[in-house]
Amino acid sequence: MNEFEIIKQYFTTDSGRKDVIMGPGDDCALLQMQPNTLLAVSTDTLVAGVHFFADMDPVALGHRALAVNLSDLAAMGADPCWVSLALTLPEVNEAWLRGFCEGFFELAEYYNVALVGGDMTRGPLSITVTVHGSLPRDRGLRRNGAKAGDGIYVTGTLGDAALGLQQQLGKVTVDEQHCEFVRTKFEHPHPRILAGQALRNIASSALDLSDGLLGDLGHITAASSLRAQLELEHLPLSQAMIDTVGLEQGWQLALTGGDDYELCFTVPEMHRGQLETALAHCGVKFTRIGRMVAGEPGVELLAEGKPYKLTARSWDHFRSGE
Amino acid sequence: MNEFEIIKQYFTTDSGRKDVIMGPGDDCALLQMQPNTLLAVSTDTLVAGVHFFADMDPVALGHRALAVNLSDLAAMGADPCWVSLALTLPEVNEAWLRGFCEGFFELAEYYNVALVGGDMTRGPLSITVTVHGSLPRDRGLRRNGAKAGDGIYVTGTLGDAALGLQQQLGKVTVDEQHCEFVRTKFEHPHPRILAGQALRNIASSALDLSDGLLGDLGHITAASSLRAQLELEHLPLSQAMIDTVGLEQGWQLALTGGDDYELCFTVPEMHRGQLETALAHCGVKFTRIGRMVAGEPGVELLAEGKPYKLTARSWDHFRSGE
Repeated sequence: MNEFEIIKQYFTTDSGRKDVIMGPGDDCALLQMQPNTLLAVSTDTLVAGVHFFADMDPVALGHRALAVNLSDLAAMGADPCWVSLALTLPEVNEAWLRGFCEGFFELAEYYNVALVGGDMTRGPLSITVTVHGSLPRDRGLRRNGAKAGDGIYVTGTLGDAALGLQQQLGKVTVDEQHCEFVRTKFEHPHPRILAGQALRNIASSALDLSDGLLGDLGHITAASSLRAQLELEHLPLSQAMIDTVGLEQGWQLALTGGDDYELCFTVPEMHRGQLETALAHCGVKFTRIGRMVAGEPGVELLAEGKPYKLTARSWDHFRSGE
Repeated sequence: MNEFEIIKQYFTTDSGRKDVIMGPGDDCALLQMQPNTLLAVSTDTLVAGVHFFADMDPVALGHRALAVNLSDLAAMGADPCWVSLALTLPEVNEAWLRGFCEGFFELAEYYNVALVGGDMTRGPLSITVTVHGSLPRDRGLRRNGAKAGDGIYVTGTLGDAALGLQQQLGKVTVDEQHCEFVRTKFEHPHPRILAGQALRNIASSALDLSDGLLGDLGHITAASSLRAQLELEHLPLSQAMIDTVGLEQGWQLALTGGDDYELCFTVPEMHRGQLETALAHCGVKFTRIGRMVAGEPGVELLAEGKPYKLTARSWDHFRSGE
C-alpha cells in the first residue's frame, strides 16, 4: 500500500460540511469562512515515547491526537470546523491504521470536524494535528484578560490523567472500582468544546490544562500581569484520587500533573450568576479554586489560609529529560 | 532553555500583518480572512533521514521546510498569509535553531507570511509546517479541470534537484561550473508563488512537482479523467543536467526525480497568448511539454513521435524502503 492508497482507503470521508469547498486530494484544501468570524488555528504534535507509549492502543491514540488539539479551540471558545493530520509511521500496519482512524473519526464526527488534508510519511511514529475553528469577532477567550478580583475556576476534576499515567507506570495501585475511570481520563481526554463556547461572554481569560494547573495558570498570570491565589482545599479531586493517594498527594497531582484537558478560566464577580446558568446548561461541572489579585505574576498556594509549599514543577518536554 | 524560552527567543517576530489578530502565545492564533476569499490550507512533514539528511545545513532546512509548503499554495494560485510550525528536536542546539530560523524567516519575510503558532517538542528530528493562504472565490487551480486539447506546461527546468541529490550521494560528478546551480536547486527550492497567482485565470489545472513529473502529472490525468502525451524532447533540461548525464538520463531524472517544486499546469489553446503575457510579466520561464488527450488516465511518453519506455518510477515514501 502506498501513501495515496492509504489516504484513499482510510482518510477519505465525507463530513457533509458545506464550507469544505475542496477537501483532501489537491494541493490545498479550500475552505469557506462565515462572515464576521475569525479563524482560530492551533497545532500540537504527539511523539511516541514522549507523549504516549509507542504500544498505546491506536483507537485511544487517534482520539487523543484530535482531542488535545480540540481542547485548544475549546480554550479559545471557538467552534471546531476543520482538521489537518500529518502522520509519520515507521511502517504500514493496517490494523493499527484502522484503529487510529476509528478513534480519530469518532471524535471528529462528534464535533462535526472535517478532515481536509494532511501528509503521510515514513519515520519514527509521530502525529501532528492542526485544527481550525471559527469564532464570532472579538469574542475569543484570551489569556491576558483577567482582572484583579476575578474568580479562578476549573472544569471537571484535576490530576486524574496523571494518576492514570502513574498507574500505567506501575507506580500506584488504583482500587478496582476506580480503574476504568482513571484509565479513561488518561486515554480518552474529552475536549471541553461546549463549555468553551458557553464561556465566550462570561470569562475574562481562559486556557486548557495540558501541562498542569500550576504552570498553565502561570501563563494567565504572566499574560494578565496579575497574581493568582489558589485555595488548595477547593481543588476538585475525584473520589478515585482521594481513595488512591489521599488529599495532599492529590493536590500535588492536580497542580503539576499534565494531560487534564480541563479548562481553567477567570470570571469577574458580576458574571458569576451567568456562569452558573451557562455551564449548567451544557452539563459541565466547575469549581471556583481561587482568585486573581494584584502583584507579581505567579501562583500563590494557600491551604486553610496559610502559604503552602510544593516542590514538584510543571511538565516541560525540554526539561523532562534532565 | 525550555520550550517557552525557545519560542520567545527564536520564534517571536512581528510580521506586521494586520490580519493576525492574535499571534503565537495563546491557545490558538486568531486570524482575519478578507471578504469573498477562500482559505487555502496545506500541510507537509519533513523527517530526518527520509526527506533530508540529519546533518543538513539548518539554514537550508529552515528554508526548505517552508518552501515545500508554499509550493502547494503556489500550485493552487493562493496568496500566502500565515504559517504554523511544529518542530520536533532531539535536543536544544541553539546554533542549529538560529540557522533554522534564519532560513525559515528569510523566506517567510520574502512572501510576507506570518508565523502564527505551532508546537515544539522533544523527539526524532522532524518538521511539520501548515501554511494558510487566501484565494479569490472560484479561482483555485485544481487538478481536475484539464480538458482534452489543453497544452501541458511546466515552469523552470526539471530534474536538477534530483541531480543535486545524486551528487550529494556521490553517485554522479557534476562539473565545477554547475556545482552551485545544482546544489541550490536541491537545497533552496523556490516556490512559484507569483507564477501560481498569474495562472489563476489562465490554467485549467495545476499542481506542484514534488514527487517527479510522471507521478505528479498522473494525478492531473486521474482527477481530470484524461490521458497526457508528453514529448520528451521538449522537457526543459538545464545545461548542468545535459553536461552531467546527457539527454536520456536527463529525461529519466526529469520524469522521476522529486523535489523540483516547479509548477505543472494545463492551459486551453485559447489562453495561450494570455499565458505568454502573464508569465513573462513575473519573469518565469515555462515550456510546453505535451498535451491532454481523451483516453485512459495515465501518462504517455513520446520521443520523436514514437512511444518511449521508462523503467524507473516516482518517489513514494512507503515504497522507497522496499
